[in-house]
Amino acid sequence: MTERNDVRYELYYWPGIQGRGEFVRLAFEEADVPYVDVARLPRAEGGGVHAMQEFLNGERGGLAPLAPPFLRVGDLVLAQTAAILQYLGPRLGLVPDDDASRLHAHQLQLTIADLVDEAHDTHHPIGTNLYYEDQKPEAKRRARSFVGERMPKFLGYFERTLGRDGASGAQYLFGPHLSYVDLSLFQIVAGLRYAFPKAMARLEPSIPRTVAVHDRIAARPRIGAYLASPRRLPFNEQGIFRRYPELDQ
Amino acid sequence: MTERNDVRYELYYWPGIQGRGEFVRLAFEEADVPYVDVARLPRAEGGGVHAMQEFLNGERGGLAPLAPPFLRVGDLVLAQTAAILQYLGPRLGLVPDDDASRLHAHQLQLTIADLVDEAHDTHHPIGTNLYYEDQKPEAKRRARSFVGERMPKFLGYFERTLGRDGASGAQYLFGPHLSYVDLSLFQIVAGLRYAFPKAMARLEPSIPRTVAVHDRIAARPRIGAYLASPRRLPFNEQGIFRRYPELDQ
Repeated sequence: MTERNDVRYELYYWPGIQGRGEFVRLAFEEADVPYVDVARLPRAEGGGVHAMQEFLNGERGGLAPLAPPFLRVGDLVLAQTAAILQYLGPRLGLVPDDDASRLHAHQLQLTIADLVDEAHDTHHPIGTNLYYEDQKPEAKRRARSFVGERMPKFLGYFERTLGRDGASGAQYLFGPHLSYVDLSLFQIVAGLRYAFPKAMARLEPSIPRTVAVHDRIAARPRIGAYLASPRRLPFNEQGIFRRYPELDQ
Repeated sequence: MTERNDVRYELYYWPGIQGRGEFVRLAFEEADVPYVDVARLPRAEGGGVHAMQEFLNGERGGLAPLAPPFLRVGDLVLAQTAAILQYLGPRLGLVPDDDASRLHAHQLQLTIADLVDEAHDTHHPIGTNLYYEDQKPEAKRRARSFVGERMPKFLGYFERTLGRDGASGAQYLFGPHLSYVDLSLFQIVAGLRYAFPKAMARLEPSIPRTVAVHDRIAARPRIGAYLASPRRLPFNEQGIFRRYPELDQ
Protein backbone atom coordinates (compact mmCIF):
# COMPACT_ATOMS: atom_id res chain seq x y z
CA MET A 1 0.00 0.00 0.00
CA THR A 2 3.05 2.24 0.00
CA GLU A 3 2.12 3.28 -3.51
CA ARG A 4 -0.98 5.08 -2.36
CA ASN A 5 0.55 8.49 -2.07
CA ASP A 6 2.89 8.15 -5.02
CA VAL A 7 0.54 7.12 -7.76
CA ARG A 8 -1.98 9.26 -9.62
CA TYR A 9 -4.94 7.18 -10.74
CA GLU A 10 -7.06 8.66 -13.50
CA LEU A 11 -10.40 7.12 -14.38
CA TYR A 12 -11.95 8.05 -17.73
CA TYR A 13 -15.65 7.44 -18.15
CA TRP A 14 -18.81 9.16 -19.35
CA PRO A 15 -19.51 11.94 -16.85
CA GLY A 16 -23.30 11.65 -16.63
CA ILE A 17 -23.88 8.00 -15.77
CA GLN A 18 -22.82 5.31 -13.31
CA GLY A 19 -22.47 2.77 -16.12
CA ARG A 20 -19.48 0.46 -16.21
CA GLY A 21 -17.29 3.13 -14.61
CA GLU A 22 -19.17 2.72 -11.35
CA PHE A 23 -17.59 -0.68 -10.66
CA VAL A 24 -14.20 1.04 -10.66
CA ARG A 25 -15.38 4.03 -8.63
CA LEU A 26 -16.70 1.73 -5.90
CA ALA A 27 -13.29 0.08 -5.57
CA PHE A 28 -11.46 3.39 -5.16
CA GLU A 29 -14.07 4.66 -2.71
CA GLU A 30 -13.96 1.58 -0.48
CA ALA A 31 -10.15 1.59 -0.50
CA ASP A 32 -10.10 5.32 0.24
CA VAL A 33 -7.51 5.80 -2.47
CA PRO A 34 -7.68 9.13 -4.32
CA TYR A 35 -8.57 9.01 -8.02
CA VAL A 36 -9.33 11.63 -10.60
CA ASP A 37 -12.61 11.11 -12.45
CA VAL A 38 -11.25 13.01 -15.42
CA ALA A 39 -14.26 13.51 -17.66
CA ARG A 40 -16.21 14.94 -14.71
CA LEU A 41 -13.69 17.73 -14.21
CA PRO A 42 -14.25 21.05 -15.98
CA ARG A 43 -12.51 21.37 -19.31
CA ALA A 44 -10.43 24.23 -17.88
CA GLU A 45 -8.92 21.71 -15.47
CA GLY A 46 -8.10 19.24 -18.23
CA GLY A 47 -11.42 17.42 -17.93
CA GLY A 48 -14.56 16.89 -19.93
CA VAL A 49 -15.49 14.30 -22.50
CA HIS A 50 -12.96 15.86 -24.83
CA ALA A 51 -10.08 14.66 -22.63
CA MET A 52 -11.45 11.13 -22.88
CA GLN A 53 -12.03 11.29 -26.62
CA GLU A 54 -8.39 12.14 -27.26
CA PHE A 55 -7.45 8.68 -26.04
CA LEU A 56 -10.27 6.91 -27.87
CA ASN A 57 -9.34 8.70 -31.10
CA GLY A 58 -5.75 7.56 -30.81
CA GLU A 59 -4.45 11.12 -30.48
CA ARG A 60 -2.47 10.22 -27.38
CA GLY A 61 -0.48 7.44 -29.04
CA GLY A 62 0.02 3.89 -27.82
CA LEU A 63 -2.75 1.34 -27.73
CA ALA A 64 -6.05 3.25 -27.83
CA PRO A 65 -9.04 1.77 -25.98
CA LEU A 66 -12.15 0.98 -28.00
CA ALA A 67 -14.44 2.34 -25.29
CA PRO A 68 -14.50 3.69 -21.75
CA PRO A 69 -14.00 3.05 -18.92
CA PHE A 70 -10.23 3.15 -19.00
CA LEU A 71 -7.64 3.76 -16.33
CA ARG A 72 -4.48 5.80 -16.72
CA VAL A 73 -1.59 5.20 -14.33
CA GLY A 74 1.65 6.78 -15.46
CA ASP A 75 2.35 5.44 -18.95
CA LEU A 76 -0.26 2.71 -18.72
CA VAL A 77 -3.68 3.17 -20.31
CA LEU A 78 -5.85 0.14 -19.57
CA ALA A 79 -9.42 -0.47 -20.73
CA GLN A 80 -12.09 -3.09 -19.99
CA THR A 81 -13.75 -2.87 -16.57
CA ALA A 82 -12.80 -6.36 -15.41
CA ALA A 83 -9.17 -5.88 -16.49
CA ILE A 84 -9.01 -2.56 -14.63
CA LEU A 85 -10.33 -4.18 -11.46
CA GLN A 86 -7.93 -7.08 -11.81
CA TYR A 87 -5.10 -4.57 -12.02
CA LEU A 88 -6.34 -2.49 -9.10
CA GLY A 89 -7.38 -5.35 -6.82
CA PRO A 90 -3.98 -6.04 -5.24
CA ARG A 91 -3.01 -2.37 -5.27
CA LEU A 92 -6.16 -1.37 -3.39
CA GLY A 93 -6.13 -4.37 -1.06
CA LEU A 94 -9.39 -5.59 -2.55
CA VAL A 95 -8.55 -9.17 -3.44
CA PRO A 96 -7.09 -12.08 -1.45
CA ASP A 97 -3.36 -12.77 -1.74
CA ASP A 98 -3.35 -16.27 -3.18
CA ASP A 99 -3.20 -16.89 -6.93
CA ALA A 100 -6.25 -19.15 -7.10
CA SER A 101 -8.49 -16.60 -5.39
CA ARG A 102 -7.21 -13.86 -7.69
CA LEU A 103 -7.95 -15.93 -10.78
CA HIS A 104 -11.38 -16.76 -9.42
CA ALA A 105 -12.11 -13.15 -8.50
CA HIS A 106 -11.41 -12.21 -12.10
CA GLN A 107 -13.55 -15.08 -13.39
CA LEU A 108 -16.44 -13.91 -11.23
CA GLN A 109 -15.95 -10.31 -12.34
CA LEU A 110 -16.15 -11.43 -15.97
CA THR A 111 -19.36 -13.27 -15.13
CA ILE A 112 -20.70 -10.01 -13.70
CA ALA A 113 -19.62 -8.28 -16.91
CA ASP A 114 -21.73 -10.78 -18.86
CA LEU A 115 -24.72 -9.98 -16.67
CA VAL A 116 -24.13 -6.25 -17.17
CA ASP A 117 -24.10 -6.73 -20.95
CA GLU A 118 -27.39 -8.60 -20.77
CA ALA A 119 -28.97 -5.99 -18.49
CA HIS A 120 -27.94 -3.35 -21.01
CA ASP A 121 -29.41 -5.27 -23.91
CA THR A 122 -32.86 -5.36 -22.30
CA HIS A 123 -33.27 -1.78 -23.49
CA HIS A 124 -31.07 -2.14 -26.57
CA PRO A 125 -31.75 -5.59 -28.01
CA ILE A 126 -31.40 -4.49 -31.63
CA GLY A 127 -28.57 -1.97 -31.62
CA THR A 128 -26.74 0.60 -29.52
CA ASN A 129 -26.95 2.95 -32.50
CA LEU A 130 -30.75 3.11 -32.21
CA TYR A 131 -32.86 4.85 -29.57
CA TYR A 132 -34.77 2.78 -27.04
CA GLU A 133 -37.97 4.15 -28.54
CA ASP A 134 -37.03 2.56 -31.86
CA GLN A 135 -36.72 -0.93 -30.37
CA LYS A 136 -39.43 -1.01 -27.72
CA PRO A 137 -41.36 -4.12 -28.78
CA GLU A 138 -38.10 -6.08 -29.03
CA ALA A 139 -36.96 -4.65 -25.68
CA LYS A 140 -40.12 -5.84 -24.03
CA ARG A 141 -39.61 -9.33 -25.36
CA ARG A 142 -35.94 -9.44 -24.40
CA ALA A 143 -36.66 -8.06 -20.94
CA ARG A 144 -39.20 -10.83 -20.38
CA SER A 145 -36.50 -13.39 -21.11
CA PHE A 146 -33.96 -11.52 -18.98
CA VAL A 147 -36.25 -11.19 -15.98
CA GLY A 148 -37.66 -14.70 -16.28
CA GLU A 149 -34.54 -16.69 -17.15
CA ARG A 150 -31.29 -14.77 -17.05
CA MET A 151 -31.59 -12.73 -13.85
CA PRO A 152 -32.46 -15.86 -11.82
CA LYS A 153 -29.69 -17.80 -13.54
CA PHE A 154 -26.95 -15.26 -12.81
CA LEU A 155 -28.09 -14.28 -9.32
CA GLY A 156 -28.75 -17.93 -8.45
CA TYR A 157 -25.18 -18.63 -9.50
CA PHE A 158 -23.77 -15.99 -7.15
CA GLU A 159 -26.05 -17.26 -4.40
CA ARG A 160 -24.66 -20.79 -4.79
CA THR A 161 -21.13 -19.41 -4.98
CA LEU A 162 -21.63 -17.61 -1.66
CA GLY A 163 -22.87 -20.90 -0.19
CA ARG A 164 -20.14 -23.15 -1.60
CA ASP A 165 -18.07 -25.52 0.56
CA GLY A 166 -15.72 -23.64 2.79
CA ALA A 167 -17.58 -20.37 2.28
CA SER A 168 -20.55 -21.32 4.42
CA GLY A 169 -21.53 -18.48 6.67
CA ALA A 170 -19.01 -16.28 4.87
CA GLN A 171 -19.56 -12.55 4.85
CA TYR A 172 -18.26 -12.11 1.31
CA LEU A 173 -17.46 -14.10 -1.83
CA PHE A 174 -13.98 -14.89 -0.53
CA GLY A 175 -14.90 -15.39 3.11
CA PRO A 176 -14.13 -12.58 5.53
CA HIS A 177 -11.98 -10.67 2.99
CA LEU A 178 -13.94 -8.02 1.07
CA SER A 179 -13.04 -8.04 -2.63
CA TYR A 180 -13.79 -5.83 -5.59
CA VAL A 181 -16.17 -8.55 -6.80
CA ASP A 182 -18.36 -8.06 -3.73
CA LEU A 183 -18.51 -4.35 -4.48
CA SER A 184 -19.59 -5.17 -8.03
CA LEU A 185 -22.22 -7.59 -6.73
CA PHE A 186 -23.54 -4.77 -4.55
CA GLN A 187 -23.82 -2.61 -7.65
CA ILE A 188 -25.64 -5.37 -9.54
CA VAL A 189 -28.26 -5.70 -6.80
CA ALA A 190 -28.65 -1.93 -6.56
CA GLY A 191 -28.93 -1.59 -10.33
CA LEU A 192 -31.41 -4.41 -10.80
CA ARG A 193 -33.53 -3.05 -7.95
CA TYR A 194 -33.60 0.28 -9.75
CA ALA A 195 -34.38 -1.14 -13.19
CA PHE A 196 -36.64 -4.06 -12.27
CA PRO A 197 -38.14 -3.37 -8.83
CA LYS A 198 -41.04 -5.79 -9.25
CA ALA A 199 -38.95 -8.61 -10.63
CA MET A 200 -36.31 -8.14 -7.92
CA ALA A 201 -38.94 -8.13 -5.18
CA ARG A 202 -40.06 -11.53 -6.45
CA LEU A 203 -36.51 -12.89 -6.77
CA GLU A 204 -34.85 -11.61 -3.60
CA PRO A 205 -36.35 -14.16 -1.15
CA SER A 206 -34.48 -16.87 -3.08
CA ILE A 207 -31.09 -15.12 -2.90
CA PRO A 208 -30.66 -14.17 0.78
CA ARG A 209 -26.86 -14.43 0.86
CA THR A 210 -26.55 -12.11 -2.13
CA VAL A 211 -28.89 -9.56 -0.59
CA ALA A 212 -26.91 -9.80 2.66
CA VAL A 213 -23.68 -8.97 0.79
CA HIS A 214 -25.42 -5.95 -0.72
CA ASP A 215 -26.60 -4.80 2.71
CA ARG A 216 -23.23 -5.35 4.37
CA ILE A 217 -21.53 -3.25 1.73
CA ALA A 218 -24.11 -0.46 1.87
CA ALA A 219 -23.40 -0.31 5.62
CA ARG A 220 -19.63 0.05 5.26
CA PRO A 221 -18.65 3.56 6.35
CA ARG A 222 -16.75 4.62 3.24
CA ILE A 223 -19.34 3.21 0.86
CA GLY A 224 -22.12 4.81 2.90
CA ALA A 225 -20.36 8.16 2.75
CA TYR A 226 -19.81 7.76 -0.98
CA LEU A 227 -23.43 6.86 -1.68
CA ALA A 228 -24.53 9.98 0.21
CA SER A 229 -22.06 12.21 -1.63
CA PRO A 230 -22.44 14.04 -4.96
CA ARG A 231 -19.72 11.77 -6.33
CA ARG A 232 -22.36 9.01 -6.57
CA LEU A 233 -24.37 9.88 -9.65
CA PRO A 234 -28.02 8.86 -9.49
CA PHE A 235 -29.26 6.00 -11.64
CA ASN A 236 -30.87 7.39 -14.77
CA GLU A 237 -32.21 6.41 -18.17
CA GLN A 238 -28.90 6.90 -19.98
CA GLY A 239 -26.98 4.22 -18.08
CA ILE A 240 -26.89 0.44 -17.99
CA PHE A 241 -29.74 0.05 -15.51
CA ARG A 242 -32.80 2.00 -16.65
CA ARG A 243 -36.20 2.15 -15.09
CA TYR A 244 -38.66 1.56 -17.88
CA PRO A 245 -41.75 0.21 -16.11
CA GLU A 246 -42.91 -1.61 -19.24
CA LEU A 247 -39.77 -3.80 -19.04
CA ASP A 248 -40.26 -4.77 -15.38
CA GLN A 249 -42.49 -7.76 -15.94
CA MET B 1 8.29 -24.23 -21.01
CA THR B 2 9.65 -26.88 -18.67
CA GLU B 3 6.10 -27.41 -17.47
CA ARG B 4 5.00 -28.78 -20.79
CA ASN B 5 5.53 -32.43 -20.00
CA ASP B 6 4.53 -32.20 -16.35
CA VAL B 7 1.16 -30.54 -16.58
CA ARG B 8 -2.10 -32.08 -17.73
CA TYR B 9 -4.32 -29.44 -19.30
CA GLU B 10 -8.00 -30.32 -19.54
CA LEU B 11 -10.36 -28.18 -21.61
CA TYR B 12 -14.08 -28.56 -21.00
CA TYR B 13 -16.41 -27.33 -23.70
CA TRP B 14 -19.45 -28.42 -25.71
CA PRO B 15 -18.26 -31.24 -27.97
CA GLY B 16 -20.16 -30.35 -31.15
CA ILE B 17 -19.18 -26.74 -31.80
CA GLN B 18 -16.16 -24.47 -32.13
CA GLY B 19 -17.82 -21.79 -30.02
CA ARG B 20 -15.83 -20.02 -27.35
CA GLY B 21 -13.75 -23.14 -26.73
CA GLU B 22 -12.10 -22.69 -30.11
CA PHE B 23 -10.09 -19.68 -28.94
CA VAL B 24 -8.47 -21.92 -26.32
CA ARG B 25 -7.98 -24.84 -28.72
CA LEU B 26 -6.13 -22.59 -31.18
CA ALA B 27 -3.67 -21.55 -28.46
CA PHE B 28 -2.86 -25.14 -27.49
CA GLU B 29 -2.55 -26.16 -31.12
CA GLU B 30 -0.18 -23.34 -32.07
CA ALA B 31 1.95 -23.97 -28.98
CA ASP B 32 1.98 -27.70 -29.70
CA VAL B 33 1.15 -28.37 -26.07
CA PRO B 34 -0.99 -31.46 -25.41
CA TYR B 35 -4.46 -30.90 -23.99
CA VAL B 36 -7.42 -33.12 -23.31
CA ASP B 37 -10.67 -31.92 -24.87
CA VAL B 38 -12.62 -33.75 -22.19
CA ALA B 39 -16.21 -33.56 -23.39
CA ARG B 40 -15.17 -34.90 -26.80
CA LEU B 41 -13.79 -38.10 -25.28
CA PRO B 42 -16.07 -41.13 -24.98
CA ARG B 43 -17.84 -41.46 -21.66
CA ALA B 44 -15.98 -44.74 -21.05
CA GLU B 45 -12.76 -42.69 -21.02
CA GLY B 46 -14.14 -40.15 -18.55
CA GLY B 47 -15.46 -37.83 -21.25
CA GLY B 48 -18.79 -36.64 -22.59
CA VAL B 49 -20.96 -33.73 -21.63
CA HIS B 50 -21.66 -35.50 -18.36
CA ALA B 51 -18.06 -34.96 -17.21
CA MET B 52 -18.47 -31.24 -17.88
CA GLN B 53 -21.85 -30.99 -16.19
CA GLU B 54 -20.46 -32.37 -12.93
CA PHE B 55 -18.37 -29.23 -12.60
CA LEU B 56 -21.17 -26.88 -13.67
CA ASN B 57 -23.55 -28.51 -11.20
CA GLY B 58 -21.11 -27.99 -8.35
CA GLU B 59 -20.69 -31.75 -7.79
CA ARG B 60 -16.91 -31.43 -7.91
CA GLY B 61 -16.69 -28.88 -5.10
CA GLY B 62 -14.83 -25.58 -5.11
CA LEU B 63 -15.92 -22.63 -7.18
CA ALA B 64 -18.16 -23.97 -9.96
CA PRO B 65 -18.10 -22.18 -13.33
CA LEU B 66 -21.35 -20.71 -14.61
CA ALA B 67 -20.68 -21.91 -18.15
CA PRO B 68 -18.06 -23.54 -20.37
CA PRO B 69 -15.38 -23.23 -21.55
CA PHE B 70 -13.34 -23.94 -18.47
CA LEU B 71 -9.83 -25.20 -17.95
CA ARG B 72 -8.70 -27.67 -15.34
CA VAL B 73 -5.05 -27.76 -14.33
CA GLY B 74 -4.39 -29.75 -11.18
CA ASP B 75 -6.58 -28.26 -8.48
CA LEU B 76 -7.44 -25.15 -10.50
CA VAL B 77 -10.72 -24.92 -12.39
CA LEU B 78 -10.86 -21.65 -14.33
CA ALA B 79 -13.71 -20.35 -16.49
CA GLN B 80 -14.17 -17.41 -18.86
CA THR B 81 -12.38 -17.64 -22.21
CA ALA B 82 -10.31 -14.48 -21.81
CA ALA B 83 -9.23 -15.45 -18.29
CA ILE B 84 -8.20 -18.89 -19.51
CA LEU B 85 -6.10 -17.36 -22.29
CA GLN B 86 -4.55 -14.85 -19.89
CA TYR B 87 -3.53 -17.77 -17.69
CA LEU B 88 -2.21 -19.86 -20.56
CA GLY B 89 -0.47 -17.07 -22.50
CA PRO B 90 2.83 -17.07 -20.58
CA ARG B 91 2.75 -20.84 -20.08
CA LEU B 92 2.34 -21.48 -23.82
CA GLY B 93 4.75 -18.74 -24.90
CA LEU B 94 1.90 -16.87 -26.58
CA VAL B 95 2.22 -13.41 -25.07
CA PRO B 96 5.13 -10.96 -24.80
CA ASP B 97 7.12 -10.88 -21.54
CA ASP B 98 6.52 -7.32 -20.41
CA ASP B 99 3.68 -6.41 -18.05
CA ALA B 100 2.18 -3.67 -20.23
CA SER B 101 1.89 -5.96 -23.25
CA ARG B 102 0.30 -8.66 -21.13
CA LEU B 103 -2.28 -6.25 -19.75
CA HIS B 104 -2.99 -4.98 -23.25
CA ALA B 105 -3.23 -8.50 -24.68
CA HIS B 106 -5.91 -9.24 -22.11
CA GLN B 107 -7.68 -5.95 -22.84
CA LEU B 108 -7.76 -6.81 -26.55
CA GLN B 109 -8.96 -10.33 -25.81
CA LEU B 110 -11.83 -8.89 -23.78
CA THR B 111 -12.67 -6.64 -26.71
CA ILE B 112 -12.78 -9.74 -28.91
CA ALA B 113 -15.06 -11.34 -26.31
CA ASP B 114 -17.43 -8.38 -26.68
CA LEU B 115 -17.46 -8.87 -30.46
CA VAL B 116 -18.14 -12.58 -30.00
CA ASP B 117 -21.11 -11.79 -27.74
CA GLU B 118 -22.51 -9.44 -30.35
CA ALA B 119 -21.97 -11.94 -33.18
CA HIS B 120 -23.86 -14.50 -31.10
CA ASP B 121 -26.73 -12.13 -30.45
CA THR B 122 -27.34 -11.61 -34.17
CA HIS B 123 -29.14 -14.96 -34.13
CA HIS B 124 -30.33 -14.71 -30.51
CA PRO B 125 -31.32 -11.07 -29.93
CA ILE B 126 -34.23 -11.92 -27.64
CA GLY B 127 -33.03 -14.85 -25.59
CA THR B 128 -30.74 -17.86 -25.55
CA ASN B 129 -33.65 -19.87 -24.19
CA LEU B 130 -35.59 -19.44 -27.44
CA TYR B 131 -34.94 -21.02 -30.83
CA TYR B 132 -33.61 -18.89 -33.66
CA GLU B 133 -36.85 -19.60 -35.50
CA ASP B 134 -38.75 -17.90 -32.69
CA GLN B 135 -36.79 -14.64 -33.00
CA LYS B 136 -36.15 -14.36 -36.73
CA PRO B 137 -37.58 -10.87 -37.40
CA GLU B 138 -35.62 -9.46 -34.46
CA ALA B 139 -32.51 -11.35 -35.60
CA LYS B 140 -32.76 -9.80 -39.03
CA ARG B 141 -32.97 -6.34 -37.53
CA ARG B 142 -30.12 -6.90 -35.10
CA ALA B 143 -27.94 -8.44 -37.82
CA ARG B 144 -28.47 -5.35 -39.97
CA SER B 145 -27.13 -3.21 -37.14
CA PHE B 146 -24.28 -5.63 -36.48
CA VAL B 147 -23.18 -5.85 -40.08
CA GLY B 148 -23.64 -2.15 -40.77
CA GLU B 149 -22.26 -0.63 -37.57
CA ARG B 150 -20.68 -3.04 -35.14
CA MET B 151 -18.59 -5.27 -37.43
CA PRO B 152 -16.92 -2.22 -39.05
CA LYS B 153 -16.43 -0.63 -35.62
CA PHE B 154 -14.72 -3.63 -34.05
CA LEU B 155 -12.70 -4.70 -37.07
CA GLY B 156 -11.76 -1.08 -37.80
CA TYR B 157 -10.48 -0.89 -34.24
CA PHE B 158 -8.23 -3.92 -34.69
CA GLU B 159 -7.06 -2.53 -38.01
CA ARG B 160 -6.03 0.75 -36.36
CA THR B 161 -4.42 -1.16 -33.51
CA LEU B 162 -2.30 -3.13 -35.99
CA GLY B 163 -1.27 0.19 -37.57
CA ARG B 164 -0.53 2.06 -34.34
CA ASP B 165 2.77 3.89 -33.74
CA GLY B 166 5.59 1.45 -33.31
CA ALA B 167 3.60 -1.41 -34.78
CA SER B 168 3.81 -0.18 -38.35
CA GLY B 169 4.61 -3.01 -40.68
CA ALA B 170 4.21 -5.43 -37.79
CA GLN B 171 3.28 -8.98 -38.52
CA TYR B 172 1.11 -9.35 -35.45
CA LEU B 173 -0.67 -7.25 -32.80
CA PHE B 174 2.47 -7.15 -30.68
CA GLY B 175 4.96 -6.81 -33.49
CA PRO B 176 6.90 -9.92 -34.49
CA HIS B 177 5.75 -11.92 -31.45
CA LEU B 178 2.66 -14.04 -32.15
CA SER B 179 0.18 -13.86 -29.27
CA TYR B 180 -3.00 -15.66 -28.36
CA VAL B 181 -4.89 -12.50 -29.35
CA ASP B 182 -3.71 -12.88 -32.95
CA LEU B 183 -5.00 -16.44 -32.95
CA SER B 184 -8.36 -15.16 -31.70
CA LEU B 185 -8.39 -12.46 -34.37
CA PHE B 186 -7.82 -15.20 -36.95
CA GLN B 187 -10.85 -17.02 -35.57
CA ILE B 188 -12.95 -13.85 -35.71
CA VAL B 189 -12.16 -13.32 -39.40
CA ALA B 190 -12.78 -16.99 -40.18
CA GLY B 191 -16.06 -16.96 -38.25
CA LEU B 192 -17.37 -13.74 -39.75
CA ARG B 193 -16.47 -14.98 -43.24
CA TYR B 194 -18.52 -18.08 -42.53
CA ALA B 195 -21.51 -16.27 -41.04
CA PHE B 196 -21.56 -13.11 -43.16
CA PRO B 197 -19.72 -13.83 -46.44
CA LYS B 198 -21.30 -10.95 -48.35
CA ALA B 199 -20.78 -8.38 -45.61
CA MET B 200 -17.19 -9.50 -45.06
CA ALA B 201 -16.44 -9.33 -48.79
CA ARG B 202 -17.53 -5.68 -48.68
CA LEU B 203 -15.60 -4.91 -45.49
CA GLU B 204 -12.30 -6.69 -46.11
CA PRO B 205 -10.74 -4.16 -48.50
CA SER B 206 -10.81 -1.63 -45.65
CA ILE B 207 -9.04 -3.94 -43.15
CA PRO B 208 -5.98 -5.26 -45.03
CA ARG B 209 -3.74 -5.63 -41.96
CA THR B 210 -6.36 -7.69 -40.17
CA VAL B 211 -6.84 -9.95 -43.17
CA ALA B 212 -3.05 -10.32 -43.43
CA VAL B 213 -2.88 -11.50 -39.79
CA HIS B 214 -5.57 -14.06 -40.60
CA ASP B 215 -3.66 -15.29 -43.63
CA ARG B 216 -0.33 -15.45 -41.81
CA ILE B 217 -1.86 -17.55 -39.07
CA ALA B 218 -3.64 -19.88 -41.49
CA ALA B 219 -0.24 -20.46 -43.11
CA ARG B 220 1.54 -21.41 -39.87
CA PRO B 221 2.40 -25.12 -40.01
CA ARG B 222 0.78 -26.19 -36.76
CA ILE B 223 -2.38 -24.19 -37.36
CA GLY B 224 -2.55 -25.47 -40.94
CA ALA B 225 -2.24 -29.05 -39.69
CA TYR B 226 -4.88 -28.42 -37.06
CA LEU B 227 -7.35 -26.90 -39.51
CA ALA B 228 -6.94 -29.93 -41.77
CA SER B 229 -7.39 -32.38 -38.88
CA PRO B 230 -10.59 -33.86 -37.42
CA ARG B 231 -9.82 -31.93 -34.23
CA ARG B 232 -11.06 -28.77 -35.99
CA LEU B 233 -14.82 -29.03 -35.91
CA PRO B 234 -16.57 -27.45 -38.89
CA PHE B 235 -18.55 -24.26 -38.42
CA ASN B 236 -22.22 -25.11 -38.02
CA GLU B 237 -25.56 -23.63 -37.04
CA GLN B 238 -25.25 -24.49 -33.35
CA GLY B 239 -22.19 -22.32 -32.69
CA ILE B 240 -21.45 -18.63 -32.34
CA PHE B 241 -20.98 -17.99 -36.05
CA ARG B 242 -23.94 -19.32 -38.02
CA ARG B 243 -24.62 -19.04 -41.70
CA TYR B 244 -28.17 -17.84 -42.03
CA PRO B 245 -28.25 -16.16 -45.45
CA GLU B 246 -31.15 -13.92 -44.40
CA LEU B 247 -28.86 -12.28 -41.79
CA ASP B 248 -26.01 -11.57 -44.23
CA GLN B 249 -27.21 -8.23 -45.48
